[in-house]
Amino acid sequence: MNRRCIIMGEPIMMKTQNSVFLRDETLVLIDRRKLPHTIEEVICTNYEETAMAIEKMVVQGAGDIAIAAGYGLYLAAAALEKGRTFTAAEPLLFKAKQRLTQTRPTGYHLAALLEKLYAGLNWENPPLAKQIRQKIEHLLTVQQNRSETTGRWGATLLEDQDTILTHCFPGSALLYMLKDALQAGKNVKVVATETRPYLQGARLTAWSVSQLNVPVTLITDNMAAYCMEQGMIKKVFTAADRIALDGTIANKIGTLQLALLADHFQVPFYILGYGGPDRSCPDRHHIPIEIRAPEEVLHFAGIRITGTEVAGFYPAFDITPPQLINKIITDRGLFDPQTIFTYPRPPSLL
Amino acid sequence: MNRRCIIMGEPIMMKTQNSVFLRDETLVLIDRRKLPHTIEEVICTNYEETAMAIEKMVVQGAGDIAIAAGYGLYLAAAALEKGRTFTAAEPLLFKAKQRLTQTRPTGYHLAALLEKLYAGLNWENPPLAKQIRQKIEHLLTVQQNRSETTGRWGATLLEDQDTILTHCFPGSALLYMLKDALQAGKNVKVVATETRPYLQGARLTAWSVSQLNVPVTLITDNMAAYCMEQGMIKKVFTAADRIALDGTIANKIGTLQLALLADHFQVPFYILGYGGPDRSCPDRHHIPIEIRAPEEVLHFAGIRITGTEVAGFYPAFDITPPQLINKIITDRGLFDPQTIFTYPRPPSLL
Repeated sequence: MNRRCIIMGEPIMMKTQNSVFLRDETLVLIDRRKLPHTIEEVICTNYEETAMAIEKMVVQGAGDIAIAAGYGLYLAAAALEKGRTFTAAEPLLFKAKQRLTQTRPTGYHLAALLEKLYAGLNWENPPLAKQIRQKIEHLLTVQQNRSETTGRWGATLLEDQDTILTHCFPGSALLYMLKDALQAGKNVKVVATETRPYLQGARLTAWSVSQLNVPVTLITDNMAAYCMEQGMIKKVFTAADRIALDGTIANKIGTLQLALLADHFQVPFYILGYGGPDRSCPDRHHIPIEIRAPEEVLHFAGIRITGTEVAGFYPAFDITPPQLINKIITDRGLFDPQTIFTYPRPPSLL
Repeated sequence: MNRRCIIMGEPIMMKTQNSVFLRDETLVLIDRRKLPHTIEEVICTNYEETAMAIEKMVVQGAGDIAIAAGYGLYLAAAALEKGRTFTAAEPLLFKAKQRLTQTRPTGYHLAALLEKLYAGLNWENPPLAKQIRQKIEHLLTVQQNRSETTGRWGATLLEDQDTILTHCFPGSALLYMLKDALQAGKNVKVVATETRPYLQGARLTAWSVSQLNVPVTLITDNMAAYCMEQGMIKKVFTAADRIALDGTIANKIGTLQLALLADHFQVPFYILGYGGPDRSCPDRHHIPIEIRAPEEVLHFAGIRITGTEVAGFYPAFDITPPQLINKIITDRGLFDPQTIFTYPRPPSLL
C-alpha cells in the first residue's frame, strides 16, 4: 500500500494531479472515500459522471473539487468536438457549467473556477476543449504554488515543540507547512480529529502527515475540549471552503465548535486561507450551507448504526465568525480576518 | 429485530435486567457493542470473564456495569461453594472484588456497589453466593425506582415543543423522563450525538428513544455547535459517571465540550444524576480518567480508518465543572451543582 501512496517521494495528497488527472480522454479520480486502505480509481467519461462523482464525494477539498469540475467542463467540450453530441456548443457548455456548479454549494473555488473557465472561452477559436485543458493545467500550477506559499507562511507561525490540532483535510498547504517547519529544524506534532461522518481527518490528514514522518495522533471529534484543557494543543489550523470579505469563514462541519473551544482555552486559531476571500461574498448571509443526505450520518461503511426509525441530519459545513480567528494565512502573507478584504486581487487567475 | 428488542412493550434499555441477568448459574450480557442490529448474548461463567466483558464494553452505563460486576462477585462465591475452587473464601472474594473494581476506574457505581456487597457479607452465615444474589436483586429494584424517579424529576424541566440534545446513553432515566413528558401531553423531540468511538448515542440512545415513539434525530459529535447556533436545541441532558461533592461531574468524553458550547449559546445544561454524589470524592482531583486502548479510535467495525503509522488517543471520560451545569437531577429532586453535597445520604443502599 505505502509504495503506491507515496508518489515521487511525497504523500499522494500533496498535489492535486496525483488524484485528479486525465488519462486517454477520461477523467480519473482516486476515490477519497476509500483512502488510505484502498487506492481505487473512479473513471468519468462525461460531465454528468463528473458531477455525480463530486456530489458523492469521490473527490474532496475545495481546490481539488474545482479542478475536477473544470475537467468535467473539458469532457463536455471534448464530446462536442469529437461529434459525440449534436447540441450546439454554447447551450451544452452552459448546461454543463450549471450542473457542475450546483454539485456543492458551499465552497467558493468550484463556482469561481467554472465561471472563469466559461467566461474565458474564445468561441471563435476552437477547439474549446483544448482551451479549457490548457487553462486547467495552468491553474494547477497556480494552485500548487499557492499551496506551497501558504504553507510557507503558515510555518512562520510554528514554533519548535508545538503540537497543532487540525480538522478535516485542510489541503496540501498543511503538508507544505509541516515540511517547511521540519526543514527549519522545528519539531512539530499533529493531532487530527477524525472528522465524521467521512473521516477525512483519519483517512487523509493523519495518513498524509504520517507520510511526512511527522508524529500524528488521531482523536474523535468529541475529544477536542479535553485535549485543549490538558494543554496538549498549542495552535489550531483548519482550511476554509469560503472566506467572506468580513473575515467570516465557512468550513467543514465541526470547525465552529473547535473555534469556540480554542477561544475558551485561549488556543490560537488559524485558517489556511490560500487565495483569500470570495470578493462576491460580503458576509455569512451570502454563504449557503450544504445539507447532505441523512443516510451519510445513519450509516458507516455500509452498516446502519442506529434503529430504523431514527432520522439523521447532516449539515456539511458551518460558519466561523472573524472574532474567533487569529490569522488567515494566505499565499500573500498573514491577515487579520478583519483586514482580509485588503488581500490583493490577483492580476488574473487563468 | 424490533420484536426481540421490545421486551414487555418497552425498550430493552429501559431496565438493567433486560440485558444483564443470570441464567443457569451463568451471567448473560446482551452485547451493547452489537446493538441495535444484532441481539447477541455474551456468557460469563466466572468473575474473570465478567471482568473482561466489562473491560471490553460488552456492558456499558454506570448502573449496568455495577450490577454486572456484582454478578461477577456472585459467580466467584458460587464457584467456591460448589467446590469448583479450593481457595479460602475471603482471599478469593477479596481478589475478585479487586479485579472487578479495576476494570473501569472513572465511574463511581462500580466500586461503590462491590465495596458494599463485600462489606455486607456475613461470613458466618453461608451460602455467601445467595447473600450476594439477594442484595443484587434488591439493588436492581432500588436502581429501577431511582431511574424512574429521576426521570420524573427531569420531566418537570421539559416544556411542550422542546428539542433536547443528549450525549452517549444517559441511562434509563432519560427514557422515563421522555415517557413521563409524553404522558403529560408534552411533545418533545430528541437530538442524539452519535458518540464516537463506540456510537452509544446512535446505537443505544437514538434507538431506544425511537422505540418510545419520540422523534429522534442523529447527528455526529461535531455538529453540536451548529445545531445550537441554529436554535435547534432548547436543553441539553447528559448523565454522569461520577458526581463530586463540589458539583463537578465526570461523564463520557465529549460532555465537557457540549457543556462549554451550551454555555456559549445559553442553552441550559442538565445532568441526570440518579443517586447523587460520591461522598468520598470532594472534587475533580479525585476522579481518575480512564485512558483506553488507542486501537478503539483507530478502527471502526474492524476496519482501520487511518494509516499504519498514525497513533491514537482515547480518553474515555472528561470532567465538567459545576459552573457549566444548571441543575443536577436526582431521585430526591433538582439540585444546583453547588448544593449537591446536601443530597440526603440514603439510609442504606443494600
